[in-house]
Amino acid sequence: MDHAFLVDLLGADQFSTAETALAEHATDWGTEDADGSAPDAVVYPDSTEDVSAVLAAATERGIPVTPYAAGTSLEGNPVPTHGGISMNLTRMDAVQEIRPDDFQMDVEPGVMGPAIEEAAGQYGLFFPPLPSSGDISTIGGMIANAASGMQTVKYGEIADWVLELEVVLADGSVITAGSRAVKTSSGYNLRDLFVGSEGTLGVVTRATLELAGRPEQIKGGRVLFPTLEAATAAVADIVQSGVDVAKIELVDAEAATMSNAYTGADLPDQPMVFLEFHADHGIDDEIAFCEAVLSDHDPEQFEIADGERMEDLWRARKDLAPAIDEYDPDRGFRHPGDVTVPISEYGNLIAYAKALAADYDLSIPCFGHAGDGNVHYAILVNPDDPDEAARAKEAHSRIIERAIEVGGTATGEHGVGRGKREYLVAEHGEETVEAMRAVKRALDPTDTLNPGKIFPETADGERVRADDGE
Amino acid sequence: MDHAFLVDLLGADQFSTAETALAEHATDWGTEDADGSAPDAVVYPDSTEDVSAVLAAATERGIPVTPYAAGTSLEGNPVPTHGGISMNLTRMDAVQEIRPDDFQMDVEPGVMGPAIEEAAGQYGLFFPPLPSSGDISTIGGMIANAASGMQTVKYGEIADWVLELEVVLADGSVITAGSRAVKTSSGYNLRDLFVGSEGTLGVVTRATLELAGRPEQIKGGRVLFPTLEAATAAVADIVQSGVDVAKIELVDAEAATMSNAYTGADLPDQPMVFLEFHADHGIDDEIAFCEAVLSDHDPEQFEIADGERMEDLWRARKDLAPAIDEYDPDRGFRHPGDVTVPISEYGNLIAYAKALAADYDLSIPCFGHAGDGNVHYAILVNPDDPDEAARAKEAHSRIIERAIEVGGTATGEHGVGRGKREYLVAEHGEETVEAMRAVKRALDPTDTLNPGKIFPETADGERVRADDGE
Repeated sequence: MDHAFLVDLLGADQFSTAETALAEHATDWGTEDADGSAPDAVVYPDSTEDVSAVLAAATERGIPVTPYAAGTSLEGNPVPTHGGISMNLTRMDAVQEIRPDDFQMDVEPGVMGPAIEEAAGQYGLFFPPLPSSGDISTIGGMIANAASGMQTVKYGEIADWVLELEVVLADGSVITAGSRAVKTSSGYNLRDLFVGSEGTLGVVTRATLELAGRPEQIKGGRVLFPTLEAATAAVADIVQSGVDVAKIELVDAEAATMSNAYTGADLPDQPMVFLEFHADHGIDDEIAFCEAVLSDHDPEQFEIADGERMEDLWRARKDLAPAIDEYDPDRGFRHPGDVTVPISEYGNLIAYAKALAADYDLSIPCFGHAGDGNVHYAILVNPDDPDEAARAKEAHSRIIERAIEVGGTATGEHGVGRGKREYLVAEHGEETVEAMRAVKRALDPTDTLNPGKIFPETADGERVRADDGE
Repeated sequence: MDHAFLVDLLGADQFSTAETALAEHATDWGTEDADGSAPDAVVYPDSTEDVSAVLAAATERGIPVTPYAAGTSLEGNPVPTHGGISMNLTRMDAVQEIRPDDFQMDVEPGVMGPAIEEAAGQYGLFFPPLPSSGDISTIGGMIANAASGMQTVKYGEIADWVLELEVVLADGSVITAGSRAVKTSSGYNLRDLFVGSEGTLGVVTRATLELAGRPEQIKGGRVLFPTLEAATAAVADIVQSGVDVAKIELVDAEAATMSNAYTGADLPDQPMVFLEFHADHGIDDEIAFCEAVLSDHDPEQFEIADGERMEDLWRARKDLAPAIDEYDPDRGFRHPGDVTVPISEYGNLIAYAKALAADYDLSIPCFGHAGDGNVHYAILVNPDDPDEAARAKEAHSRIIERAIEVGGTATGEHGVGRGKREYLVAEHGEETVEAMRAVKRALDPTDTLNPGKIFPETADGERVRADDGE
């Protein structure tokens, strides 16, 4: 790629072809093999105008542009598949305006969770849908991947807290999707089309977020169960009984073992459920209601507290990712699972994953946002054992296929990226995927934006242009 | 239009060219002049297959198809602009399945609010976002218009309670948008693209709705204020203080006069705010909190009750539509206003509308879903007074323009239809509207579906085809 045109568009410190920069943009957290995923150049826009200029010029020249931010995606979502330009948006990290009377905040795409929380906190407000990785990921990435998090069970997803987006399209035009009114029925809802489109339809350059008032009362803790079945039944019962939980997370016995080893906690290696409650008053009534619902499921060591004790009780869940990562020196965290199913299928899906683990002789700790029916899991794989790696890949596929069979989704909050493309048709059907492709061709006819993502790979691995498809 | 092809596709009782049928489908509630809006034929599909067959055949023949249901839209949304086929979906009115453990229900598009509530009620569940007109409108119409209602302030809009849609596209293909999982990040969010697209992108033939558990406690009532300013400030303060209201509705003094005349209530003609609270416990704490917030705004006759007394207290709001309609024997309810603004602009916008009413010597009672910043109003017009009609039209435009200026929307929950097309560009900008058109051309390249809606009229009033625009 001849990148001379970037000299005219951007300042000298706004693009790079240095090997270190290219290598940095060739991976995300889920990348196992960065071969072939380096861009030819990285650009660092400072403004909407920069984004627009680069996109217009790239589209004219047929050069792919892949948006990149914190690199914390898990499915290769921001990793180039066809070289070209990696557009790093982390310099656009301003909190532009807060309108506390409207519970609204305008941010640039590179703003990270802590900056949002700090700015909102000055007015007693917070941004409820932040994902667990919110501390180290950007709002632009969260929007691109349709992220959600532990508090989604009460407050909803990122998509539910985005009011308006400024988006630059592939041709460089700048549009505004949504409204600063809390509801609108004016024209097509392009806003929610861009949310979760993984930078394949446009680049978000400003987001108006909705905020919420901080609850007056916060308490949380955990409960152990004698069996996995009891734990998942308790989760379903809590959700179906309408207990107002702000977080409800499962950690299965295998994950508990890893977590206990990591934290040194004096806890049995049993399934655990972690709970948090938010209220402005009457929180103890809600906790009592929850305890009553739990009582049918043989709970052990149920404890809810506030402050530091709450943090202690939650530690086994909070430290789970490094605990899994470090548990077995020979095995790494592969295949980050993110299937999500209707809550009535939640227990069955987890039981299925555990049965597969036994069948395939694999370690598959399960955890995640139980109240949403969202099952996270990891498959531990020894990279020097190709047979184990193959078994892990197959088990991962079978869990996803089962989730789809029972009416669920391959990916609750991580997006499709490269990693889940092969399941798109199974989940949505050929005609639905073709309608998605038609939307892609309409808004990005030259396939400039993040080619090779979301849609199943073409036979020859080529980008899909508007004139190919019709 | 030669409708002979319908004979091969449908049963003899499934289409009509009778004058009465054509006339019935030439109007909705907002139609002032049905000239030129009659279809050439009406079809009554019984199934997804019928919808698909008609759409495929119509697209092949270049015949417009305009979906129609209860006819309760207010902006001409289901009224043909280019003749062709009116597709009446009211025969597809089955509640197909309820999955109470998942809080889910599958319905056909012609199902009305009461059938949804009855089916859900058998399991102690309800469908929270029903609009005020839900008793007489269909779920398909609610989805098409991105409807919402009195309880949106607590529970959200129709869009927030639709999980999955089966949609027939113009070419007859049948797609499934969304998921039965409560969240998904798999592929483009086509579901929310169809919600609010007013039948211009596809015809919904099945919707999976999410339901909620009925609250254990419901109380409601009203409060009077000495001035409009005090009433709107109280509304904003309640919202900004985070009081958990399930409904919060304004009725201004002029609307109160009409309502009192209609109901014979012994109430002063003063601004009123109507409130409802839902909780599982602690409802009286929330009501006390609300009363404390109100105390800064000179409230009068604050009363909250349950059961029949609650119904009595709410009567002035519930009967408002007929009260306005019947108040002045010489004047009819024109220009149903639906602007929605950020809550900090709510009081200003209503004050602006009232000042315009004085300037233009018009009666403009204001009311509506105050907590969302949604201002409904009517302009009373004597049809025999063309000067008054012209003043009303101008005042209506100025209110909408002001709402857009302050970051709001022309239409919070009624859609664009024919009535609000002229504001689309002012609200969204040329480039955004062009992106919407690109989506339209991608999914309906022949402009078969509901032509002449949402987008500003072309100079010659012609339909917009894919090959015209590119």
